[in-house]
Order: sequence, then structure tokens, then C-alpha cells
Amino acid sequence: MQRVCLVIGAGAGIGNHVGRRFARAGYHAVLCRRTDEEGLNRAVARIAEDGGAASGFLLNAVAAGAIEERIAAVEADIGPIEVAVYNLGAQIGDRALADTGHKVFELGWRLATFGLFRMAASVCPPMEERGRGTILVTSATAAVRGNRGQHSHAAAMAGRRMLCQTLNAEFGPKGVHVAHVIVDGMVDAPDTLGRMLGEDAFRRLREERGLEHDGLLLPAEIAETYFHLSQQHRSAWTFELDLRPFSDTPWWNR
Amino acid sequence: MQRVCLVIGAGAGIGNHVGRRFARAGYHAVLCRRTDEEGLNRAVARIAEDGGAASGFLLNAVAAGAIEERIAAVEADIGPIEVAVYNLGAQIGDRALADTGHKVFELGWRLATFGLFRMAASVCPPMEERGRGTILVTSATAAVRGNRGQHSHAAAMAGRRMLCQTLNAEFGPKGVHVAHVIVDGMVDAPDTLGRMLGEDAFRRLREERGLEHDGLLLPAEIAETYFHLSQQHRSAWTFELDLRPFSDTPWWNR
Amino acid sequence: MQRVCLVIGAGAGIGNHVGRRFARAGYHAVLCRRTDEEGLNRAVARIAEDGGAASGFLLNAVAAGAIEERIAAVEADIGPIEVAVYNLGAQIGDRALADTGHKVFELGWRLATFGLFRMAASVCPPMEERGRGTILVTSATAAVRGNRGQHSHAAAMAGRRMLCQTLNAEFGPKGVHVAHVIVDGMVDAPDTLGRMLGEDAFRRLREERGLEHDGLLLPAEIAETYFHLSQQHRSAWTFELDLRPFSDTPWWNR
Amino acid sequence: MQRVCLVIGAGAGIGNHVGRRFARAGYHAVLCRRTDEEGLNRAVARIAEDGGAASGFLLNAVAAGAIEERIAAVEADIGPIEVAVYNLGAQIGDRALADTGHKVFELGWRLATFGLFRMAASVCPPMEERGRGTILVTSATAAVRGNRGQHSHAAAMAGRRMLCQTLNAEFGPKGVHVAHVIVDGMVDAPDTLGRMLGEDAFRRLREERGLEHDGLLLPAEIAETYFHLSQQHRSAWTFELDLRPFSDTPWWNR
Repeated sequence: MQRVCLVIGAGAGIGNHVGRRFARAGYHAVLCRRTDEEGLNRAVARIAEDGGAASGFLLNAVAAGAIEERIAAVEADIGPIEVAVYNLGAQIGDRALADTGHKVFELGWRLATFGLFRMAASVCPPMEERGRGTILVTSATAAVRGNRGQHSHAAAMAGRRMLCQTLNAEFGPKGVHVAHVIVDGMVDAPDTLGRMLGEDAFRRLREERGLEHDGLLLPAEIAETYFHLSQQHRSAWTFELDLRPFSDTPWWNR
Repeated sequence: MQRVCLVIGAGAGIGNHVGRRFARAGYHAVLCRRTDEEGLNRAVARIAEDGGAASGFLLNAVAAGAIEERIAAVEADIGPIEVAVYNLGAQIGDRALADTGHKVFELGWRLATFGLFRMAASVCPPMEERGRGTILVTSATAAVRGNRGQHSHAAAMAGRRMLCQTLNAEFGPKGVHVAHVIVDGMVDAPDTLGRMLGEDAFRRLREERGLEHDGLLLPAEIAETYFHLSQQHRSAWTFELDLRPFSDTPWWNR
Repeated sequence: MQRVCLVIGAGAGIGNHVGRRFARAGYHAVLCRRTDEEGLNRAVARIAEDGGAASGFLLNAVAAGAIEERIAAVEADIGPIEVAVYNLGAQIGDRALADTGHKVFELGWRLATFGLFRMAASVCPPMEERGRGTILVTSATAAVRGNRGQHSHAAAMAGRRMLCQTLNAEFGPKGVHVAHVIVDGMVDAPDTLGRMLGEDAFRRLREERGLEHDGLLLPAEIAETYFHLSQQHRSAWTFELDLRPFSDTPWWNR
Repeated sequence: MQRVCLVIGAGAGIGNHVGRRFARAGYHAVLCRRTDEEGLNRAVARIAEDGGAASGFLLNAVAAGAIEERIAAVEADIGPIEVAVYNLGAQIGDRALADTGHKVFELGWRLATFGLFRMAASVCPPMEERGRGTILVTSATAAVRGNRGQHSHAAAMAGRRMLCQTLNAEFGPKGVHVAHVIVDGMVDAPDTLGRMLGEDAFRRLREERGLEHDGLLLPAEIAETYFHLSQQHRSAWTFELDLRPFSDTPWWNR
């Protein structure tokens, strides 16, 4: 049985790179994403080529029981989940209140808040029993301020952040390290930013701002900080940190 | 047609007193609560005895269409909603993660976050058309920090707070004043605190801490600040403020 | 002996209007400012014309003993200071680190942080003895976020804010109400904004943004909220609130 | 010329261990502290025994010119300061306002805020010229909330935090990484906590809470996170994080 790093939301950006980083350190990376089986297989194969261990599963996080069953199966079949990464986004772009339907508002909550609640309800008991474990939660600027048009996203991400605080309050003293990572900038990720902007705009953005200029968050670099968090000694744990490119303006500045 | 102050969540504490305060200033107070028709009628009668105008409705805020229909009917039958007060709580006491079921977690969100979203979706369009209006949202310490056992409440209230920020960002410049009130202490309210503690413990708490000692938040006094917020000139609006008894410890202190 | 509202920093903006508001309610307004004796006399005369009581004093708040002596004299000669308003600004415009000298950085602290500390050290003992009193502190966005070029102002205002928290922690339970007011926008005040921008630019700004458009904070309206804070019942005190024009963007938004 | 990690405030706790950690990674550690030449020499010798490079200097950070001259000398004689760690504390224990003198309040500011301003004014120009550099600032809970009795400490640390934000706003885009580390708990450090508590109480605290229980922050573990911050790729920098023992209560919780 190998120690496992489970990634819920393992698209081609942060999730994928976090999986690779932990695999490189000897964890079995369990990658879960909703669609794109081909991309999932490629990610798993890539880790194997690097000499690491990985498994991939399609997972619809809003389906009843899906998260719970996957976690039970991983614990039973692959190994103890030492690190659980919740990396599902819920950004839908800016929408006026009149254009934010009940369904989309509720889906935002199911993805951003309720899904984390369900993951925690499944991984915390075994982690508590083992007296150790790490829950790393990708979050967004919207968790700490609500911009125009972000009704769904901000409400959902703020719920996520506060849930991380209550999880930490209950499980920290039991040895479970909960960390809330505020990704305060655009990530160089084709599956999320790329899809939202469209191929051409994404390519131009990368040329102008990313690449040599390091003006987009590189997911492989984000993964280094996720890994560091998981390795912090329990006498000096971080609950919250922010991440942004050096050239970007922090959310609190103008 | 009278200008209306609508209160969703008009139990015997803040909601009731806010209704009375606005009625005293000439608003028609529309009181809505889920249960206790007798209490509702008493509250309406009390305002009438004081020479004010009031109506009362039983309203199950989580029922589909209920908020929307009530608002439409009030606008059609009573008058323009100048002030909408969202005062539904979602406190369920401290519960370990293992004791926080899916249903209760979702209900918290429906009461604390989604209900406000639905109220805003209904009152903002007419307010925007009139170029004026006020949305006053009662909130709790759990909106800004997640204590142990508050998984459901904190996630839901944080969503409420951030939704207030996005509503303010969209509707502030259109003349709609959104204010988020952090009630950081125990309110001297039989319908909420009283019910949670039980009759005896509530009576003892009032004797020891409240009454002459002003150690519980008096809802009639809270209502004064709600009223002040609604009267602020649009050149100097408050988005957020906190309220607590002088003798209490603010949430950020020990 | 009349109850007194003392204003330290009584220029032609917030300070002056706060003094007038409290005088209208029967307080003796004691206006203190560093320069412009003529303006000071006009402000005092204006209150008298309105039927109120006022006194004016030139006061250099950074001079050793000046605040302390003025407070002692007011308590001895005019009446008990029920409300003390600390309204000294320390904005010097945006300056690169290389252009922010030691003197200006220290002066910012003396005006924004140390002066409040000294005022509190003088007014808290008599307020504590009387079991009541209010300290209203004008603050700025820089107290909660540090923008580019604001090295001196932000460090000084953040110190002011945190000092308000420690004062509240010690003196709140003794009946002294401390409130920290975040003025998050430009105030329609000739003595501060007007001087910083120059006469022409200030006139244009008022025409474009202020006046009919209510896009500048009107000091007379700010004064209404200061007055409300001072009248809050001790069972429901506000420690912190923000103020901005309806059409302005809150500091946390873009 | 070796790349340098400068530590201002290199007592036997965080400062010392940060120096050792960077020395282990090939930096020349320049340790500065106000007193205890013997302890300083021991720290330098210890690094040398481990095969690292280090120098030690007595430095009175509040003396005019002392920080500036030391930095100039290090840049001239030892090598480019790639990492500058500001680790001076300003905790004086809890003191009522009446017991907080002008001198101690001012000294808090000189140590916590003004000293950092002076260090930044000296190291930012060469860092900007080189297009790279890291400024790591040790901070405390008092930077984000003001507890009873913390008048001096909280005002000073809040100034420190906000100054970090303005430094980051100006120098981040120029390649200088500023990070503000909130140490939210008691550090297992004889020179600070040990001295404040006294030898016996400190020994008992270590036995009960620290050692096997990891209930005190271990400075060697804190140093790992400082080192990680300095190695973050500029596409994914952290400005702020918190650190506390797993078993401790975060500042925002009760």
C-alpha cells in the first residue's frame, strides 16, 4: 500500500502539476476529473514515464455519492490518503444578477463549498484515526472579496474559505493540516483560463504576459508551494497563504 | 401606496424591532416569518397600536417561489419596497463534522445565502428602476471567522457576506444601498437565543448578563442602527459595520 | 458645566461639520486645529449663529504636552469631554520609497498613531471615572491596505487602527465607546483634498463628481454617522464601519 | 563575493535558525543582534562547523545610521544581499494604557516599523538594480488584531504589516519579493519567550507544551518556510502566510 495524494479537480493546470509533484516525491497520485478521459490518461502516463505512480478516475463531484465512493475505493485499493487536494473551480465569468440563474448559483455552491464538505467528511475520519493528513484547498480571490458580476463565484468561494477555517478548528488539533491557498491571479492553464478566454485570446495572453515574463501563475511552481505545505512540521503549520505573479497587482491594491 | 420596509425573518428579536422602528418613521412594515402566526399577528397589532402601519405574512423562505411571490405581491398591493431587511438566521449550534448531515448543511446555505440571493433578485430590479432602495442584511460573526463546530453556519454566512459585496458592487452605483451588519454577540431574543438555550437557561442568562447590565444585544437598539443606515445620504454610505455589547469581547480578541 | 465634544483636527471638512452636528445636539464643541486662526474663528462663530456653544483653539498636536494640556484645560474650564474626535490626517500623496524621508515617515506616525495614543491617555482616565465616553477616530483606506507610494500614510494609519482595537479592548468594558471610521473615498473638503489638489483641480473635481452627483463624501453627512455612533446604546456598539459615496468603488473591489 | 542572507534580529530563536538554514543552502549568513556577543559568536561558529559561511555583528537597530551602515558594509565587503530578514520583535507584555509610557510606545514603533522602513530603504535600491531579492519579515498576531494591553505592540506591528504591503506594491514588480510572516503562537526561543517568562516558567512550558507535543513553534521548522518563500518562482509568490503549532488555536478562533 502506497501513501496517496488524491487530487479532486485534476485538469491540465494546478491539479495535474500537483499530482506530478507529489508523485515525484513518492506518493501515488490519484487524479480525478469530470471529463476528458484522454487528457486524464495522458496525465497518468506522464507520471509513469517520470518513474512515478498514478491512477486516474473520471469523477463527477456533484453526483451523489461519487466523491465518497471514490475516496473509500482509494483507501481500500491503493493506500491511505495522506494528502487530499480539493482543486475544483467554480468561476463562470462575470454575470449580472439578472443573468445569474438559480441553477448556476446552486451549482457554484455544489462545486466550491459542498463538494469540499463532502470530501472532508470522507477523508477526515481516516486521517484522524491515523493522527495525520493534509487537506490542501485551492481557492481564489473571490473568497476574500466580491467583485461585480461574481455573485455565484464569490458566495461559493467565501463559503469554501470559511469551511476550511471550521475544518481546521476541528481537525488541526487531531493532526490534520488544512491549508487554504488563495490563488490571486491568472493561472497558465489551458483547461480553465484557456477555455474561458478561447484559444486565440489565451495564446495572445500567454505571449504578452506569460512565458518569459512570468506574468501568469505557472502551475508547476504553484505545485512547489502545495508540496511545501504538506511537508511543514506540525509545530509550524500554515493555514492560509496567497500566490500571485511578481508583476501582478495584489487584490487589495489598485 | 405607502413606502414599505420588508422584513424577511421577523421573529421576536431583531426583525420585529426593525419593523417597529421603520413603522414609527412612517414606513409600512411588512413582517414575514415562517411559523407562529399568533406571534406574527401580535407584532402587527403592536405596530398598529403605536399608530403605525404593518402587515404580516407567513413565509417559508426555502420554498420555491415563496420569496419572489411575496415581494411581487407587496410591490403590487402595498407599495414600493424602499427597505428590504434580510434577517434569517442559520445557527444550529456547534456540531462536529460527523454530526453535520448533508441536509442540514444544505439548509444552512438555502437560508443564509440562497435566500438572500433570491430576495435580491426580486427587489433589486424595482429598486434600480426607482434609482433608490436599501438592503439591510443581518449577519453573524461566523461570516468572518469559522469556529469549531460551525461548519454549516460559517460556510453559509461567509457566502452571505460575499454576496453582499457583489450585490453592492453591481447595485450601489445604481442607488441601491446594501449594508452587511455583523451582529457579534448574543441577542436578547426569545425566538432564537431563547429557543436554542431553553427557557430556564435563557432566563438566567438575561438576569446575569442582560437587563441592567446591557450584556446582551437589545434588538430595539440594534434597530436604531438599521434605521440610521437606511437614512444615510448616498454620499456617505456604510457597507459594513459590527455591533456588540460594550462588555463583550470582540470576535478578534481574547 | 456643559458636556463637551472635543475635535482634534477641526479643519473645514469632517472636523468642522462634526463639531457643528454635536453643537446642534447641545454639546459644547471644542474645535482644535493647528493653523488658520481666522478659519477657526469663523467655525466657532458659525456654531454660535446657529445657537450652539463652541470654543476654538490652535493646537499643534505633535508638540510635547499640547494635547494633554488642552484636554486638561477643557475638562477644568468648559466641561466633561463626553465625545473626543480624533480627526488628524497624515496623507502626503504618493511617494516612492526613495522620496520618503525619515522625517516625513516619523511625522506621519506622530500625527496618525502617537497623537491618538496621547489623546487617549488623556481622555480615557476621566471617561473611565465617569463610566462613559466616546472616542471617534477618523481613519482612511490606508489603515486596511497599503497602496503603492503610501509607505508613510499606510504604516501610520494601520497603527492607528490597531491602537483603536487595543483601546477598545481595555476601555470598552469600562463604558468608553471607541469607534474606528474608515473613510474610503475623497471628502469634499477644501482644507485637505482642496489643498492637495490645488484650487482649480479641486473645483473641477467638485463639478464633475461632487455636487449634484454625490460622488464626493459630504462632511456634513459623515457627521450624521459620527453622531449616530455617539448615541448608540451600550448594548449595541459599533467598533468599525466604512463610509464612501454610492458611486465609488470600495477599496476591496476593482 | 558570496550571495548573502542578512538577518536583523538574530537571537537564539527564529533569526539564528533562519541564518543556519540559508547557510546550509550556500548563502553567507550575516547575523546581527543588539547584545550578547558571546551568543552571536557561538551562532557564527556553529554555522562554520556545519560547513557554512557566516559573519556576526552587534547592531543597535534604533541607533541612527546603524542599519544603513551595516548594509552598505555587507554589500561592499561580503556580497550582494539576496535575502534580507527583518526579525526584530517589539513585544513588551500586556500593559494597561496608564502603564504604557511615551518612550516605550515610541520604541515599539522604532523597532517594529521604522527599523523595517530603514532596512528597506537600504536594501531595495541594490535589489532593484539587480532585478531580484527577497525581504522576509517576521510578524506577529498583533499585526492583525489588537488585544488588551497590546497598545504599543499592536500599533507597531500593524504599521509593519502595512509597510510590507506598500513595499510589495512598489518593489514586487521590480523583482523584489516581500513576504510578511504572521507567527501566531509561542516560539520555542530562549532569548525572547524564555526571557519574558523567566527560566523556570519557560522550562515548565517547554515540558508541558513543547518538545514531544510540538505545541510551541520550533524555530528550525519556521526557518524551512522562510527558505521556501525565498525559493518561490516569481510567477507564484506568497505575500503573506501564517504559522502556528497544530495544537494551537488560530487567532481568529475561540
